[in-house]
Amino acid sequence: MVKVRVPASTSNLGSGFDCFGMALQIYLTVKMEIHPPGLEICVHGEGCAEISTSTDNLIYLAAKRVFEQSRQQLPPLKIKIENEIPILRGLGSSGAATVAGLLCGNALAGAKIESGQILQLANEIEGTPENAAASLLGGATINCVDGSKVICKRMAVDENLKAVLCIPDTTVSTHAARAVLPKMVAYQDAVYNLQRSALLAHALISGDYQSIRTAMDDRLHQPYRKHLIPGYKEFVEAGYQNNAFGVCISGSGSAVLALTNDEIADNVAGAWEALRVHLNLPGKILISGFDNKGAQITTANGR
Amino acid sequence: MVKVRVPASTSNLGSGFDCFGMALQIYLTVKMEIHPPGLEICVHGEGCAEISTSTDNLIYLAAKRVFEQSRQQLPPLKIKIENEIPILRGLGSSGAATVAGLLCGNALAGAKIESGQILQLANEIEGTPENAAASLLGGATINCVDGSKVICKRMAVDENLKAVLCIPDTTVSTHAARAVLPKMVAYQDAVYNLQRSALLAHALISGDYQSIRTAMDDRLHQPYRKHLIPGYKEFVEAGYQNNAFGVCISGSGSAVLALTNDEIADNVAGAWEALRVHLNLPGKILISGFDNKGAQITTANGR
Repeated sequence: MVKVRVPASTSNLGSGFDCFGMALQIYLTVKMEIHPPGLEICVHGEGCAEISTSTDNLIYLAAKRVFEQSRQQLPPLKIKIENEIPILRGLGSSGAATVAGLLCGNALAGAKIESGQILQLANEIEGTPENAAASLLGGATINCVDGSKVICKRMAVDENLKAVLCIPDTTVSTHAARAVLPKMVAYQDAVYNLQRSALLAHALISGDYQSIRTAMDDRLHQPYRKHLIPGYKEFVEAGYQNNAFGVCISGSGSAVLALTNDEIADNVAGAWEALRVHLNLPGKILISGFDNKGAQITTANGR
Repeated sequence: MVKVRVPASTSNLGSGFDCFGMALQIYLTVKMEIHPPGLEICVHGEGCAEISTSTDNLIYLAAKRVFEQSRQQLPPLKIKIENEIPILRGLGSSGAATVAGLLCGNALAGAKIESGQILQLANEIEGTPENAAASLLGGATINCVDGSKVICKRMAVDENLKAVLCIPDTTVSTHAARAVLPKMVAYQDAVYNLQRSALLAHALISGDYQSIRTAMDDRLHQPYRKHLIPGYKEFVEAGYQNNAFGVCISGSGSAVLALTNDEIADNVAGAWEALRVHLNLPGKILISGFDNKGAQITTANGR
């Protein structure tokens, strides 16, 4: 039997589209064991109704991928899922599921795939690496896709840094969020974002958050997506009024993220909760620390 | 009398268009003093024939700007220029001239303008901040333009890091190099560069140069400009064959830059010199360290 605990993640962080990911202290826990006669999946927690318990379950598919990759027969699996990660909210639930499945599968298949390859496989499955990288490694990650290869740099995140999240009940599918993006963008918008993603890298590496509002500003995806996010403009305003370092869409939404620290997180969360009620928006406001441990794996030959 | 020594700079570094600048150990030295009856400029060194000795001289114009800014009458100036920076080669000669003029003018005007404002003024004059920032502060800089405001983060550069430069006799005007850039770019090209500029920031801050070749790769300007640079493709190939960390157009050219270290700089320079001769390309190959001091100013009331 193998057990993994994998953190959720926020990605993009405004300017850093398809590049930055940060692990959150919200977790998916998966226990997997070889157990005849055939696939058995049970789910507790967030997304119970939406998470498949059949052969199209993401965790199962990732585990299956590992057995295929290491040319082994897929054994019958029993998978127990305890999920805290709201799904289809831009909090990396699918990245976490993929990482969990890959790590569990790899453990059961005899750890044939070295850890560096896990992120490559996750990128192949997910299409982008930034959520899986954060879930796998924890902390903040900068991801760059070079052909089929992912280059990932990981930084520890200050203990003091906190994410305030507005998680509406309404969801946004990644597919829908990608469909609204244009094929071409103004040259100056491309330069705008590359300057800011470099500045964002500097801020996260150096812990200098003074410029993070500018660093997170974006012209490549949020202007096209904000109409998909209920109350986005108001949450941004309220976040900055309460001294958030930066506010952005978490991943492709529907959650909104404010980067804050211990001192200001409560104020932002309070203002957002009042706003959420005022806007009559079903959902919740949540404060999360950032996870610096990444995926934690425990194996046991427990009979 | 005031004397400043200002380093040249390379900018863009591939992916980091209009964002990254690094100061080189190639210098412009300017002595300026109030000296009736009127403007007197003398130039020694690089670009003697091209550098104006009249009222459109960049150093003079920058000094004049400081007097205007601090609402003082411009006095008659005597300006002595000792220049090592090849001009119109993408080595930041105009950025260095602007910084030199601003600092000299400010010293003569009674230092009315605080140092943080010098970069803002340089950006207004130059249109982009990255060369002036490197010349002013030394080291490597990440620059982000937010409206009229420049946010600049400066990192020290490893002593061990070396620039190999191919400096052809042919020049490229910044205007011509901008004219070939498109108005719109593919969405994926914008994402391509923002991922790499974030990775480049990480490499320069952390001193982890393993990924710098990927980090410097670019789809926003070099594909459109490379035909302006004689032998560009060949210099890139020869650079990587000799283990350069990264090769790119310096600024908007015509110089080509290889990022190397003490161990490999000679090999790259040797291969480039052989290639330069083979291609029958008039010019020179040069190894330069990076400057970490930035503009050095000396004032003296020498009577």
